[in-house]
Amino acid sequence: MANSKFEYVRNFEQPDALLPNTWIVVRIDGRGFTKMCAKYEFEKPNDRRALDLMNAAAKAVVTDIPEIAIAYGVSDEYSFVFHKSSNLFERRASKLVTTIVSTFTANYVYLWPTYFPDTPLSFPLPTFDGRAVCYPTVQNLRDYMSWRQADSFWKLIQLGGLDNKEAEKTLAGTLAADKNEILFSRFKINYNNEPEMFKKGSIVFRDYELAEPSSHDAAAAADALAEPAVQSKSQAEKDKKRRAKAKVVVEHLDIIKDEFWDRRPWILSGKPGQPGKASKEIQT
Amino acid sequence: MANSKFEYVRNFEQPDALLPNTWIVVRIDGRGFTKMCAKYEFEKPNDRRALDLMNAAAKAVVTDIPEIAIAYGVSDEYSFVFHKSSNLFERRASKLVTTIVSTFTANYVYLWPTYFPDTPLSFPLPTFDGRAVCYPTVQNLRDYMSWRQADSFWKLIQLGGLDNKEAEKTLAGTLAADKNEILFSRFKINYNNEPEMFKKGSIVFRDYELAEPSSHDAAAAADALAEPAVQSKSQAEKDKKRRAKAKVVVEHLDIIKDEFWDRRPWILSGKPGQPGKASKEIQT
Amino acid sequence: MANSKFEYVRNFEQPDALLPNTWIVVRIDGRGFTKMCAKYEFEKPNDRRALDLMNAAAKAVVTDIPEIAIAYGVSDEYSFVFHKSSNLFERRASKLVTTIVSTFTANYVYLWPTYFPDTPLSFPLPTFDGRAVCYPTVQNLRDYMSWRQADSFWKLIQLGGLDNKEAEKTLAGTLAADKNEILFSRFKINYNNEPEMFKKGSIVFRDYELAEPSSHDAAAAADALAEPAVQSKSQAEKDKKRRAKAKVVVEHLDIIKDEFWDRRPWILSGKPGQPGKASKEIQT
Amino acid sequence: MANSKFEYVRNFEQPDALLPNTWIVVRIDGRGFTKMCAKYEFEKPNDRRALDLMNAAAKAVVTDIPEIAIAYGVSDEYSFVFHKSSNLFERRASKLVTTIVSTFTANYVYLWPTYFPDTPLSFPLPTFDGRAVCYPTVQNLRDYMSWRQADSFWKLIQLGGLDNKEAEKTLAGTLAADKNEILFSRFKINYNNEPEMFKKGSIVFRDYELAEPSSHDAAAAADALAEPAVQSKSQAEKDKKRRAKAKVVVEHLDIIKDEFWDRRPWILSGKPGQPGKASKEIQT
Repeated sequence: MANSKFEYVRNFEQPDALLPNTWIVVRIDGRGFTKMCAKYEFEKPNDRRALDLMNAAAKAVVTDIPEIAIAYGVSDEYSFVFHKSSNLFERRASKLVTTIVSTFTANYVYLWPTYFPDTPLSFPLPTFDGRAVCYPTVQNLRDYMSWRQADSFWKLIQLGGLDNKEAEKTLAGTLAADKNEILFSRFKINYNNEPEMFKKGSIVFRDYELAEPSSHDAAAAADALAEPAVQSKSQAEKDKKRRAKAKVVVEHLDIIKDEFWDRRPWILSGKPGQPGKASKEIQT
Repeated sequence: MANSKFEYVRNFEQPDALLPNTWIVVRIDGRGFTKMCAKYEFEKPNDRRALDLMNAAAKAVVTDIPEIAIAYGVSDEYSFVFHKSSNLFERRASKLVTTIVSTFTANYVYLWPTYFPDTPLSFPLPTFDGRAVCYPTVQNLRDYMSWRQADSFWKLIQLGGLDNKEAEKTLAGTLAADKNEILFSRFKINYNNEPEMFKKGSIVFRDYELAEPSSHDAAAAADALAEPAVQSKSQAEKDKKRRAKAKVVVEHLDIIKDEFWDRRPWILSGKPGQPGKASKEIQT
Repeated sequence: MANSKFEYVRNFEQPDALLPNTWIVVRIDGRGFTKMCAKYEFEKPNDRRALDLMNAAAKAVVTDIPEIAIAYGVSDEYSFVFHKSSNLFERRASKLVTTIVSTFTANYVYLWPTYFPDTPLSFPLPTFDGRAVCYPTVQNLRDYMSWRQADSFWKLIQLGGLDNKEAEKTLAGTLAADKNEILFSRFKINYNNEPEMFKKGSIVFRDYELAEPSSHDAAAAADALAEPAVQSKSQAEKDKKRRAKAKVVVEHLDIIKDEFWDRRPWILSGKPGQPGKASKEIQT
Repeated sequence: MANSKFEYVRNFEQPDALLPNTWIVVRIDGRGFTKMCAKYEFEKPNDRRALDLMNAAAKAVVTDIPEIAIAYGVSDEYSFVFHKSSNLFERRASKLVTTIVSTFTANYVYLWPTYFPDTPLSFPLPTFDGRAVCYPTVQNLRDYMSWRQADSFWKLIQLGGLDNKEAEKTLAGTLAADKNEILFSRFKINYNNEPEMFKKGSIVFRDYELAEPSSHDAAAAADALAEPAVQSKSQAEKDKKRRAKAKVVVEHLDIIKDEFWDRRPWILSGKPGQPGKASKEIQT
């Protein structure tokens, strides 16, 4: 309340709004998950239940916060993307990051018994840290997403038992072609036979009817955006309803190539698509 | 891993280390707790189970993160204080804030059934946001703590049903002396008979043997500090062990007056005290 | 030098690199120029000598710092634009801003006697402050430039004697069509007869052969840029030489419409153009 | 002016207010002064005229900006200190830094002919860059000042012809005792016979009557400060007048030991001292 002689301390709070008209990526990481993998005896290098739980928590985050355009997860990390035109929480970094970290953590802990019915949680509980990064162009954003997906193989190897330094030494300069061999010699598994979720990671987004490829150029349109479009109230209401109705899905697709983005123009445009029938796409 | 053509995107991460040699306060707040109070039918203006749960979660945070010097909570908010000499996570703001928010949230959700055995959680789950603020001097820090404690009465009133604007209008300029009347007319309760937890909020800290008042001047010593003291390894080990052994307690004391701080010099000095017998202090 | 016990104070310096892949605008403003106008008896609302001096100082800045893509000035302010791919001073904000402010000030004071041969400077000397702002897209940058040019008329009116508050009151909602009347009633001048420099402000840039309009799309190309292009050393050398040879010019053109930018694609592309013959363009 | 469709670009400006209740140090450095020393044939390792010019420019800055508590210069650098209670320009970093850089540069260029009557300036002109750093405690501030003074000898050596890398190699671990030898073998000068300005650098401050040592504890008082004191208007006026009347002096004293600070309590207290007779102090 007002009028207290102590209240001057509010002046020490410093603003942290992120630059307008840039894509905001909030990445969260499991804290001390190498230890956690050991404690709960996760399978190496991939534990399906653990990944399913990560995906369920991420899906809850995307469902709760409609401003999130897309999320990508692998191993014990997840990246959540806000459209460049978003003005959620006036783009305050700490508010955006903590809301995502808290929502993710709450769901992870709450849903744990569903995925690990025989392994109760114990102290210290699983936790996540996070940070926000701004990307000015669609190319920057897609390169970020590609970076995480290209990195996903190595993340799994690491969690599988190679520590950071060892991994860097062993793998520096390793060609993609050697993946099989590494995996086989270390874990006796054949990369090509692994499920898509292990190889590609997981993508979470609102699903609408797929577009014909190259019928749009959502990327160029997004880059040309200068500021949040001023919408009529009724249009904003319509968009909100469409988003609320849209199904939030978890897929395991290639997001490095163009196809994923070309067929889902709503992700880069920020405008909800046509509700349409479910989209199960054949990946080439 | 290295060598990917996408990896340049790392250069967009911006450093966020907080100014050295300042007290770091991380305050977290329940998101949409007015709604939550209604949904789970919390008692107004204070629900003992809800406050006990907040305190249990805060205690877990302080136990997990020994660098926290003290924490103070009221209603749906909690403030965690890192000593000015702390170098945890190289003082990176987002790492500090998200670690606390995530640890608090995990414990809140996990411990919920203990405090609300008959009221299972449902979606959307309770979540918290947070931010970090730096305070250069002991006086600034104590004024911050006093601000929260002085504010605690009004926080409760608000949560009790007065919304922000209404509260400001009704209470602007209200004298402390009128507290009773407001509480009585609105909730039929007598302030003086309320338990200390409702009136003072909750303080969480590591407990050691109380010092004779005015036998130290921990505040001046802390202000004079210029940088993290260089400790011998064995001294650092000893401190760590003492902190690990110390009991983390939850008390409901006046932290506006000097006494609390004078008798617990370890909080401002950052050096663990004597293990001694438990400290139950008579508050005057 | 190293090894001093005081050297820890370096850790208090905080990094201030600006977000990569964004246009950096450094705007500087005369400090207390209303007073200065009176002291040196500048003509109202425009003093040709004072504007010529501003332009000469700006031209020196652009000549000294080849990384500047374009500059725009009106009244006592000047904006300098670094291309989004620039990595000058690792994009450290304070280094960029102070270098421009200092170079501008040095030239302003040094060149003063050339433009005011009969009016020697006296204490306090003319000074400028400045700040840096990032713009993610070409549209944002062009809107910034348009904002300054559209504002230029009002800047002059203000300096001509209307103070800030008075100006806002009088001019709020004034239509462009009333410019003439305001200028005439206040200063007895006819806007249409005023020289271009007074009406449009001044643009400073490296001049190359003009391109056919719409033969390029430098704006889209710039928006699509993701990071500083990796150039061969010999290409970088060639570019550097071309820039050094290019003539830095001061023009008074419309920069709100597309034509200025379409015919000078090197400004947005960041690649030096063809040396060609001088470009005097007829503005329509 | 208001109402333009371009005006949204203002939202891209990001606030940069420095943390309240901390000492602000603005350090400026000559840009490319090694080259400049060669161009204007400065004497090595110290050129009296060049240092006198630096001091004259710094004195003008301190005179123009009464909020500056003290300044310290050596070689081609100068540090200006704002008292921790200062609220000048709402503590905006870029405004504070550019105002000092611009005022310093203007005076340096303007006063050049006074100190170098036979050596006219030519392009490119001398310029300075700068940055701001916050220090929370008096000890931090004094350690910063001591760092610069302890560093002053090496700064001169460097400017005298040793480049950065060479200097670091040659001097790493050099004992203070070897100063004489280095200076003698390199420049044929005897350190002990050098004037104080060369050995101690230059301190600029408002001068009042010296205090009895240890009659105050201005440092502890400053550290205990929590916020700008609320002064009566008449007191603020009185302080302002006293500061305006005070003589700004340039001295060459030891600022590493306590004596300098103990006898001039007004520097750390921020309260103007007694006008008293001039203070020429015998340094021991």
